[in-house]
Amino acid sequence: MDKNIIYVDHAATTYVKPEVFEKMKPYFTELFGNPSSIYALGRESRKAVENARSEIAFCLGAHPTEIYFTASGTEADNWAIKGAAYANIKKGRHLITSAIEHHAVLHCFGFLEKEGFEVTYLPVDEKGFVNPDDLKKAIKPDTTLVSIMFANNEIGTIQPIKELAAIAREKGVLFHTDAVQAMGNIDVKVNDLGVDLLSMSAHKFYGPKGVGALYIRKGVRINNFMHGGAQERNKRAGTENVAGVIGMAAALKFAYENLEEYNRHLRKLSDRLIDSVMERIPYVRLNGDREKRLPGNVNLSFQFIEGESLLLMLDMKGIQASSGSACTSGSLDPSHVLLAIGLSHETAHGSLRITFGERNTEEEVDYIVENLVEIVGKLRQMSPLYEDFVRKSGK
Amino acid sequence: MDKNIIYVDHAATTYVKPEVFEKMKPYFTELFGNPSSIYALGRESRKAVENARSEIAFCLGAHPTEIYFTASGTEADNWAIKGAAYANIKKGRHLITSAIEHHAVLHCFGFLEKEGFEVTYLPVDEKGFVNPDDLKKAIKPDTTLVSIMFANNEIGTIQPIKELAAIAREKGVLFHTDAVQAMGNIDVKVNDLGVDLLSMSAHKFYGPKGVGALYIRKGVRINNFMHGGAQERNKRAGTENVAGVIGMAAALKFAYENLEEYNRHLRKLSDRLIDSVMERIPYVRLNGDREKRLPGNVNLSFQFIEGESLLLMLDMKGIQASSGSACTSGSLDPSHVLLAIGLSHETAHGSLRITFGERNTEEEVDYIVENLVEIVGKLRQMSPLYEDFVRKSGK
Repeated sequence: MDKNIIYVDHAATTYVKPEVFEKMKPYFTELFGNPSSIYALGRESRKAVENARSEIAFCLGAHPTEIYFTASGTEADNWAIKGAAYANIKKGRHLITSAIEHHAVLHCFGFLEKEGFEVTYLPVDEKGFVNPDDLKKAIKPDTTLVSIMFANNEIGTIQPIKELAAIAREKGVLFHTDAVQAMGNIDVKVNDLGVDLLSMSAHKFYGPKGVGALYIRKGVRINNFMHGGAQERNKRAGTENVAGVIGMAAALKFAYENLEEYNRHLRKLSDRLIDSVMERIPYVRLNGDREKRLPGNVNLSFQFIEGESLLLMLDMKGIQASSGSACTSGSLDPSHVLLAIGLSHETAHGSLRITFGERNTEEEVDYIVENLVEIVGKLRQMSPLYEDFVRKSGK
Repeated sequence: MDKNIIYVDHAATTYVKPEVFEKMKPYFTELFGNPSSIYALGRESRKAVENARSEIAFCLGAHPTEIYFTASGTEADNWAIKGAAYANIKKGRHLITSAIEHHAVLHCFGFLEKEGFEVTYLPVDEKGFVNPDDLKKAIKPDTTLVSIMFANNEIGTIQPIKELAAIAREKGVLFHTDAVQAMGNIDVKVNDLGVDLLSMSAHKFYGPKGVGALYIRKGVRINNFMHGGAQERNKRAGTENVAGVIGMAAALKFAYENLEEYNRHLRKLSDRLIDSVMERIPYVRLNGDREKRLPGNVNLSFQFIEGESLLLMLDMKGIQASSGSACTSGSLDPSHVLLAIGLSHETAHGSLRITFGERNTEEEVDYIVENLVEIVGKLRQMSPLYEDFVRKSGK
């Protein structure tokens, strides 16, 4: 990457850490055996895959047989939600999720609604929190699954997962969490949390794209999503992405070993950005909670301007940020997350998401602030909304 | 890989060609942008993904908008079969496939049977061919999909896909082919063949594991399989495996540019192996057709012995081969393909699949033959079946 580029969109994707890539390399051209083959080269791949599984299980405090490799967080979400919904259909057809889930979750529920399931979408408060009481009230005798994300990809809000999972468990309802944004930032431990199903994606924590995993607690009833060969203990067919799972395990292990330091670093950058922007730019709002948020996430709404224009002008200055989820860019609809926390369409459209990573520096934060001050000022001068506002308020 | 190892299981998986890996490399650590991001780094990934799509489309004679990336051949099969079955359910619930498909196809149909679909499994003859007349007779007014594999992964038999697809098309029925084994060996052109859906997997033609593609002819009705973000023109959610699709495209392009030479090389090795074995080892049978087979595939049944023992002894001599599909190894059941072509359980158990690749040599073939002669001889001496046979035949 160009040295003059400031990449602050780590929630969209991260690079593969060079030391992670080094571990993956031999498995492309040299140690390429199919893990299902019984000769030496195959057994070596099998060993590497099972070792990766154990490392991931260790991070999560799970048993290796509870970790299933997938090709993405999206696949893990699809499997968890559709697989659990259909496997428990005799118990009922009612499912619960939140209004601010990633589309990989929301669109699974949309699909299931068309298939005859009933779905309750829990609202969130102005910071993006699900209220545990709302969950309690929503659970019915025919509820089979609750799916609530660990940390929001746009506004960074961290849900009270332990409390929510306990409510589900008390009522005998399965609890899934999309932890795609949390993994690598939070010390996720499945037993402490009490979750039954948990999705992750390697490319969000300095691992490769194209690989994810689903944690399935022992004893959980879930149907297969991918049919075919006997891989993943007959639960998820398809030749293993050997290099990919090795990369995911190496990246996660590194993340867990450096969680505190990484958090401190990200929090320092986020605080610096938030404080400076609040001090220097008027009519700006921090979306999400100031404390219970992903340490590297800053989501700001600038009144009177268009997020798209802001992004383009930042890009011209070498600053690569986002208006929200990368998976919905290209759409002109305002973010469903920002609308759910009560922003107007106009304010939601003027939003910027900055997500820091390990290589970002305080100097970069200052450069971003300088440019934000300048660009936001310029865009507001050109904005009819701002003109109106100034005239009406007599400023 | 150890230089003393003779790898002859290319149907199970191939290494990533070094020149293919070189093209992938920058996309792990440097050009890591999310293709859905709108800044420069994201646009660069988008360009690379679309370029890969165009290259693959060009090889197949398809339009780039007809190529959809998946994480495996298995996912492509699952999507094609389940997606087409459900999308056309108003027309009917009858589906047709063959008895010798890969489990990634067969188990999808098994799943659909449980869901209330009716599935006809066409038989094959002693060489593994589907009879076009059987297909003609099997199609009913409520048939919506025919799925017949291009070339068999165990015995290498190449089906008359063009003829079969024409029959389906004439009756207005969709035609899918699992071309996982054919791609890279055969000059597959979708319009010449007249297929509507075609699955492929990169790691079978010197590309990486964890990436595949589904060709979907323009206008074909098919439901989404993976729900979530807007990737792949809203048809297949999940952040693109950028390095993976670049590797798949590079590998396929290389394969198409060298098809003739590669075929000549493989055919020379296969012929040498078949001729030598037939000459030097009695009571052996070549499974599949001698001509209409994948050029690098040799599938032999040795009477009176166990394939598993044969494989282990070959492995000890550095020869890495297979008894059939890698995806079903670990299972003690005899191959459904070998049973479908009429082999007895005993004969099916004594089978060996050798699949050659670009680096194999005639010297290696001779080494394999020498060892086969020796090992088969030894195993037969220890075999009660052989003893019986010798006694009864007075030899």
